[in-house]
Amino acid sequence: MARQYNFAAGPAALPEPVLRRAQAELLDYRDEGASAMEISHRGKAFIEIAERSERNLRALLSIPDDYAVLFLQGGATVQQALLPLNLAAPGQAVDYVVTGHWGATAVKEAQPSADVAVIANSKTADGQYCDIVPYAEWAPREGTAYLHYTPNETIHGIEFLDEPDLPDQVVVADMSSTLLSRPIDVRRYGVIYAGAQKNIGPSGLVVVIVRRDLLERAGQPRAPIFHWKRHADTGSMLNTPPTLAWYLAGLVFEWALEQGGVAALAKVNANKAADLYAAIDGSGGFYRNSVAPRARSWMNVPFLLHDPALESAFLTGADQAGLRALKGHRAVGGMRASIYNAVPAEAVAALIAYMKDFQQRHG
Amino acid sequence: MARQYNFAAGPAALPEPVLRRAQAELLDYRDEGASAMEISHRGKAFIEIAERSERNLRALLSIPDDYAVLFLQGGATVQQALLPLNLAAPGQAVDYVVTGHWGATAVKEAQPSADVAVIANSKTADGQYCDIVPYAEWAPREGTAYLHYTPNETIHGIEFLDEPDLPDQVVVADMSSTLLSRPIDVRRYGVIYAGAQKNIGPSGLVVVIVRRDLLERAGQPRAPIFHWKRHADTGSMLNTPPTLAWYLAGLVFEWALEQGGVAALAKVNANKAADLYAAIDGSGGFYRNSVAPRARSWMNVPFLLHDPALESAFLTGADQAGLRALKGHRAVGGMRASIYNAVPAEAVAALIAYMKDFQQRHG
Repeated sequence: MARQYNFAAGPAALPEPVLRRAQAELLDYRDEGASAMEISHRGKAFIEIAERSERNLRALLSIPDDYAVLFLQGGATVQQALLPLNLAAPGQAVDYVVTGHWGATAVKEAQPSADVAVIANSKTADGQYCDIVPYAEWAPREGTAYLHYTPNETIHGIEFLDEPDLPDQVVVADMSSTLLSRPIDVRRYGVIYAGAQKNIGPSGLVVVIVRRDLLERAGQPRAPIFHWKRHADTGSMLNTPPTLAWYLAGLVFEWALEQGGVAALAKVNANKAADLYAAIDGSGGFYRNSVAPRARSWMNVPFLLHDPALESAFLTGADQAGLRALKGHRAVGGMRASIYNAVPAEAVAALIAYMKDFQQRHG
Repeated sequence: MARQYNFAAGPAALPEPVLRRAQAELLDYRDEGASAMEISHRGKAFIEIAERSERNLRALLSIPDDYAVLFLQGGATVQQALLPLNLAAPGQAVDYVVTGHWGATAVKEAQPSADVAVIANSKTADGQYCDIVPYAEWAPREGTAYLHYTPNETIHGIEFLDEPDLPDQVVVADMSSTLLSRPIDVRRYGVIYAGAQKNIGPSGLVVVIVRRDLLERAGQPRAPIFHWKRHADTGSMLNTPPTLAWYLAGLVFEWALEQGGVAALAKVNANKAADLYAAIDGSGGFYRNSVAPRARSWMNVPFLLHDPALESAFLTGADQAGLRALKGHRAVGGMRASIYNAVPAEAVAALIAYMKDFQQRHG
């Protein structure tokens, strides 16, 4: 079958040129006589992959030299568990801002190891999330180890559209579904982490960008494999890294640079999102997105049909039109279009055309 | 370049038919219009991959129903850290048998969370490992949470060639470099875990086989993501699993079944190892393997040249002869041929022929 337009939330679409190159190299990586997944992570060929990928990620995000970049396993959730172990003393206070499901998950993963307070929460009385809490309304406690938030909430489609400016805080950001979608100022954060399966590569890899002075914190008693500093000191090769996922991430970084970098991708992303929200808002209520305009995600666009009975027909028709993975997360229902870097403007245009056509037939 | 014979210790060679199938499906997994790495782990297509892979692994190893099978991230080392957290009460005694580098690593990862004793250790006075400690010589303490050992030591090429029979112990086995190489009796173990990058698939996946009653142990305070039971209860989808690595492992399991299963693979493996050790032992001292005959690994065969000055010429010539990744681990030096399931008998025959030829030219 021809490739379809893929709106999956993650694992998500990858750029087709990346897949074609991986396919061409799958049995023989650049005259190694073996696949990139069959060679030692300590050998010359893979070390080059690792170094090139880090160099390119640093270029894409202008990561300063005093930040380490780690390529680890376990997903973003494991990092949520490791955050207090690495950054906080036993029982030390840590602050969390919750604006959706993943922020709430981060709280649960930290609770066994720290004194966690949720200092801001946008959850509504009926259990929904439809907005951020603006930075100006955050009230961090004194003497905390860090302040955690989630710049983009994948399930609810809620995004902070600007960056925090909190020089007195060690800001920790779960950027799983937003990293590489727009320029960021890394210096505003102590730690940035991101599961790969949105804008970076396949699942099974998590990128951690951490200010090096934070690696010197004592943290809490823990197994050596849970020490960020040990990973930093060994080039993320404390144990065997996920070499295949890392290699693919490297190809994605090269592709992103070829697109003109994050600023160029952001321009496309902003237009994709604006077009889709305009189509929803312009449907006269046939489609509806409940997120406050100041918090509408560029990456994940959930929307409801005015008549939930039409959902099944909408999805079946979309599938037939080559528009895949539009079913919303079970926590919010309805539809969701995830429009990461690898989802081209043509895919969004095709979705909008389908939505208009569907409305005409069922409106 | 044509594919070369690949003796890498891990990440290691994968069966060529597996790579060809992955290559053919890389842009469109069975009419999904997307790669297997681009589809939701909760969608029908991936659930089928997950269920089929577990079914096939259960068939390959005759895993009883009262054992759960988990497909996780983080590598075997993270499991070494999670073992005491899941199986032991805080400060409870746990026993370890050390017969090489990875057994020693397991001790270090457990020490922060348990009262660890090394009840048997085959380390020699000069810091080498050349033998196992037979089961009969183990003296487990009373009231321990479990007893850990490493059936095959990848670096030193030391393997327990029979299985433990310790019904009073919860035996935990790091089978990273031996799982699927020979039949095992799963009932002799409480927990079996194995990093994938030897006989299972690419790195970035770890398989955990755990007796279900052990999942009910309280363990220690820990983040939800570190609970084995939560992973078991969610079909290893507590968070986004490493779908690409899991899919590839599934292809390897199908390939293993097509070869006739583990018993058939074991027959080939036994012959490969016997031929290679015979070539070493028959070289009149030109090549040498220092491991006690009762403990010689089927999977990893380290050997030294009588004259270390010849090593570089040996490796260069091997490379030219299409024999790759033969350099030994830095901890022991010399050469190492890892001859996992995916390394065919022809590769071992080619290596032996090269070794004989090299000896004639340099003997």
